[in-house]
Amino acid sequence: MHSFRNDYSELAHPEILKLINQFSDEQNIGYGLDKHSERARNLIHREINNNDADIHFLVGGTNCNKTAIAHSLKPYEAVISVKSGHINVHEAGAIEASGHKILTVPGEGGKITVEEIEYVYAQHRDEHMVVPRMVYISNSTEIGTIYKKAELKAIYEKCQELGLYLFIDGARLGVALTAEENDLTLADVARLSDLFYIGGTKNGAMLGEALVIVNPAIKKNLRNTLKQNGGMLAKGYLIGLQFEALFADDLFFKLAAHANKMALALKAGLKRLNVEFAYDSPTNQQFIVLENRIVQKLLEKYDFEIWEEGKEKTTIRLVTSWATKQEAVADFINDLEKLI
Amino acid sequence: MHSFRNDYSELAHPEILKLINQFSDEQNIGYGLDKHSERARNLIHREINNNDADIHFLVGGTNCNKTAIAHSLKPYEAVISVKSGHINVHEAGAIEASGHKILTVPGEGGKITVEEIEYVYAQHRDEHMVVPRMVYISNSTEIGTIYKKAELKAIYEKCQELGLYLFIDGARLGVALTAEENDLTLADVARLSDLFYIGGTKNGAMLGEALVIVNPAIKKNLRNTLKQNGGMLAKGYLIGLQFEALFADDLFFKLAAHANKMALALKAGLKRLNVEFAYDSPTNQQFIVLENRIVQKLLEKYDFEIWEEGKEKTTIRLVTSWATKQEAVADFINDLEKLI
Amino acid sequence: MHSFRNDYSELAHPEILKLINQFSDEQNIGYGLDKHSERARNLIHREINNNDADIHFLVGGTNCNKTAIAHSLKPYEAVISVKSGHINVHEAGAIEASGHKILTVPGEGGKITVEEIEYVYAQHRDEHMVVPRMVYISNSTEIGTIYKKAELKAIYEKCQELGLYLFIDGARLGVALTAEENDLTLADVARLSDLFYIGGTKNGAMLGEALVIVNPAIKKNLRNTLKQNGGMLAKGYLIGLQFEALFADDLFFKLAAHANKMALALKAGLKRLNVEFAYDSPTNQQFIVLENRIVQKLLEKYDFEIWEEGKEKTTIRLVTSWATKQEAVADFINDLEKLI
Amino acid sequence: MHSFRNDYSELAHPEILKLINQFSDEQNIGYGLDKHSERARNLIHREINNNDADIHFLVGGTNCNKTAIAHSLKPYEAVISVKSGHINVHEAGAIEASGHKILTVPGEGGKITVEEIEYVYAQHRDEHMVVPRMVYISNSTEIGTIYKKAELKAIYEKCQELGLYLFIDGARLGVALTAEENDLTLADVARLSDLFYIGGTKNGAMLGEALVIVNPAIKKNLRNTLKQNGGMLAKGYLIGLQFEALFADDLFFKLAAHANKMALALKAGLKRLNVEFAYDSPTNQQFIVLENRIVQKLLEKYDFEIWEEGKEKTTIRLVTSWATKQEAVADFINDLEKLI
Repeated sequence: MHSFRNDYSELAHPEILKLINQFSDEQNIGYGLDKHSERARNLIHREINNNDADIHFLVGGTNCNKTAIAHSLKPYEAVISVKSGHINVHEAGAIEASGHKILTVPGEGGKITVEEIEYVYAQHRDEHMVVPRMVYISNSTEIGTIYKKAELKAIYEKCQELGLYLFIDGARLGVALTAEENDLTLADVARLSDLFYIGGTKNGAMLGEALVIVNPAIKKNLRNTLKQNGGMLAKGYLIGLQFEALFADDLFFKLAAHANKMALALKAGLKRLNVEFAYDSPTNQQFIVLENRIVQKLLEKYDFEIWEEGKEKTTIRLVTSWATKQEAVADFINDLEKLI
Repeated sequence: MHSFRNDYSELAHPEILKLINQFSDEQNIGYGLDKHSERARNLIHREINNNDADIHFLVGGTNCNKTAIAHSLKPYEAVISVKSGHINVHEAGAIEASGHKILTVPGEGGKITVEEIEYVYAQHRDEHMVVPRMVYISNSTEIGTIYKKAELKAIYEKCQELGLYLFIDGARLGVALTAEENDLTLADVARLSDLFYIGGTKNGAMLGEALVIVNPAIKKNLRNTLKQNGGMLAKGYLIGLQFEALFADDLFFKLAAHANKMALALKAGLKRLNVEFAYDSPTNQQFIVLENRIVQKLLEKYDFEIWEEGKEKTTIRLVTSWATKQEAVADFINDLEKLI
Repeated sequence: MHSFRNDYSELAHPEILKLINQFSDEQNIGYGLDKHSERARNLIHREINNNDADIHFLVGGTNCNKTAIAHSLKPYEAVISVKSGHINVHEAGAIEASGHKILTVPGEGGKITVEEIEYVYAQHRDEHMVVPRMVYISNSTEIGTIYKKAELKAIYEKCQELGLYLFIDGARLGVALTAEENDLTLADVARLSDLFYIGGTKNGAMLGEALVIVNPAIKKNLRNTLKQNGGMLAKGYLIGLQFEALFADDLFFKLAAHANKMALALKAGLKRLNVEFAYDSPTNQQFIVLENRIVQKLLEKYDFEIWEEGKEKTTIRLVTSWATKQEAVADFINDLEKLI
Repeated sequence: MHSFRNDYSELAHPEILKLINQFSDEQNIGYGLDKHSERARNLIHREINNNDADIHFLVGGTNCNKTAIAHSLKPYEAVISVKSGHINVHEAGAIEASGHKILTVPGEGGKITVEEIEYVYAQHRDEHMVVPRMVYISNSTEIGTIYKKAELKAIYEKCQELGLYLFIDGARLGVALTAEENDLTLADVARLSDLFYIGGTKNGAMLGEALVIVNPAIKKNLRNTLKQNGGMLAKGYLIGLQFEALFADDLFFKLAAHANKMALALKAGLKRLNVEFAYDSPTNQQFIVLENRIVQKLLEKYDFEIWEEGKEKTTIRLVTSWATKQEAVADFINDLEKLI
């Protein structure tokens, strides 16, 4: 059975494992203060063309989101997100558990608009309401769409104008930045946001995300918030080593590009079969609508997520990754063709 | 330079790495629902002689402590700990960030006493005060001491009598249970507490702790609290695999026994040199008091933690682990002998 | 200048002031343990026909909402509310500051529907999401509408079925229960909810709300949560005395009935002038849409809240209370007639 | 039966009641934005000789403490207090519920020392620990003692040096500033702290405290935190009116001076009887140690708080207030004399 369930179904890319094995009996200081983490920071600094950014390695995405928001906001401040945003739906209430309200807007194609930001900001005008202070977006989004440079620039400038931080959840930043239609570089992302994170878990690492703090106003004592929120790994060099591998030779981008390539192959095959798409995603998550009967049949041979169930039709999500093989895609298309 | 700084200075024991390499391209479902985590649970169930306990794998100790406490207590309920307790000093306020007060007592030899529990309980009598609801202990303690069976039994029975949960932080449970003077088994620990965790990070794993919930009253929806507090790993099978390795062939106990053996060798050597001990620890943390001059000299060749600085003398902590070699201990003793 | 801004513009009804003056030099024990609070509790017990309910007097509405929710929910549990709900908009994020997510639904006419509750419940199915555990409604609602007995019964039964607590914010419960079209008694409210509060502040008291806990599962240690959330008054007998006055001789209902009577007189006058209504409210809040020019003129002589500003027209809110005089209503209608 | 239980046993001083009655049917805007609150602010500004301070009226002491701390600190920052401090013992965990750790020190005579502040500050040196950011003291203290000007100045200067806010809980500031041995003015208090509150509840008001923010760094959006923490009264003018009365003609100081006068009379009487004092308090709380037999007898005719129970002797607290009559004191001394 092949799984298209997620991009974290395999342990780690061989290049990462190699480095881990290589340094397995080296002694390192803990908590991210080691030389591998330092090297990884330098590599990322070079990639974002900004040596002043603070870079912290965290155990996972929930930690990044929780830490970034808890660290940046005062108790009465809130974060604006599209309703489908990961922090709003899939963090088990972690943001609210830190005391902060998420102000939601519908979004368009999974993305927030400048007008929505303006609207929420204008609505919150007195002390009986929370104070909007941050905009949260993810790139790629929950439905696989991506922000173009002009969109991100407009959002960032609006945030600057209104005194809002822009935080980018980059759990799947790799596939966003290597999508065909993408026109953003990692340096652009760093230039057009206050803080963001670069996802390792969903792009070949065992675990680990790199939280990048660009805005100096947010830098102070971030390690305290990090520790308090449980995102600091004792053997921090485990994450450092992985980001060293990911950014040493463009591995990060190569892995993401492969995931996208597999997704586009899948998409092309599905289009050929005239399958209905729920969203038009240029990245490694594809959402298609199939008859329930067909979904049931597919589940006998493949694993994937049921996105939305209907009486007759079901939307499913198919995810490719650095580990997806051409044959798995071909098999899936062939099997689906027989069922249709 | 050799480091006695901590028991998490090396990445992982070879047996653990072997299993990780072996399954590196296997597809697994995420979040601890995989077959390796399931096998590891079964192995632990057998070891604690209790198949009904819920077992969850978390990324680290802070997560275990935060999750266990946040999950068990109501907003006005508090946890009792010795003042030196890890949750009170070294979690960057994580417990309070979850809303809970830590009620501290001095303790004796790093351990809480039945009388201290009774005293705190009796002091909190009306609604203007918090309600004590949990006792937190760690075994081994912050200064390396361990609880004997009679002590643990007395504490647990007092907790039962007063309606308090007993939670055992087992970040270093391995060395506690394999210390020479220990008379507790892992099954005893499970029988004499409401919840506890088995530390992997400090006993050979890359990362990961096993939180064991024995008391049925605390079981429900623990995974929600776990997710909310950032302790759930996407690639949960990474931790599952490691606990599979640790409990497949008593590796967990063997590694801890080695750490203790090295510590006792170190202790014996230090005693021979008539070095002053700050505490009498039977496990892998040894605390000694040296002249500042000597400490400075030692730091040229060894890394270790400065525990408490004084004007003339300094207490340092020396930690051994599964990875400590006999020669490192011998070298340290020899070098110290020359300095004294 | 007359204010229709709110129902808390005057200090207190004369009957309440009378009692306060009468007992001004009596010594009482603090924190709501006095005999006046006890008498008030007995009077409310009789009114709700339930002597087992726990009744607590709190300083204000935010405290009631915060205490009720913080006390009832576990950290990962959430409360369902209409988007316009007071807890969602006008508590400055107090609920999230207690750690809880508010799951919002659009509502119909300011009221939640059974279908919306079912929908939210069905959507939250795994540990990556919060667990819906409470439904929050207010009666009357933020736009002055009220729940009929059949509606409340259906909601309560659905809550029972799904294991959700039903909490009724009764800041304006008086006007709801004395509205012409109302068919609920206070005893019904107690029978068809798990907990609710009876608002004093907006119905003639200086301050104070009575939080009524019907469901035994929520009763334990509520005074601790109350104290922790700052809702416990040192001179609790000040609130006790006022509820004694309010429930001694149906004063609570008389005052609310007067507010409604004035609102209906206002409504009738406005209808006669063919003014556009934003909502159809049977209680003491009336929402009308006027040309901006007219609103500006009215503001020279009257105070009221601007509900929603438009380019040409503005929705304003007019609130009557126990203190509103017939002449104020007549004057307003006359002045408006001249402007139209 | 006469109560020496507390200084909030009577509703309000006649001058305060008079003003409340006088303005009972005046319309006022809510939430402290009314003209009475404004006048009261002006009167306090004059008294503290600082027109730039922000002054907010809150419903009670827990609200002041919670709001002041939650507003000033970041999530990982902590407040230093003596172990007996009100926030540490008698707020039902309100500070921790806001996410902040209280770092406790023993204190001397109920007061914190400069050395203790230095010690705690020095102990907290890395990101695994909380960051001390505020010192909390109360004047008078929990045991009735007061800070002299030199002491307060030394503490404030140390706080300035270390980057700590100094927050003074003034629930009983009146009796502190009117004690015989006091050498502080209200203006000194404002000059030697970052924020503090002036207690109304325990000095003649029905309810209400005035939170004074001197340090500009803490001013912004305090009303949001205030609302979020439930300390904002809808009929805020009720508190405004009372502080108008208290500061219009030095009533605040006169009432406190009376309480102290009664306390000193009591103290003199007790000294004459050679009663043992637990603490040497110059203000309205007196702590004496009596044989259990005598305490039981006294309880038949007087109400007071049992401070600490022993097998043979019990410490009791006797509190005088603005309302205490000379005869009550005389009666108590006479009755006690007969029992001894």
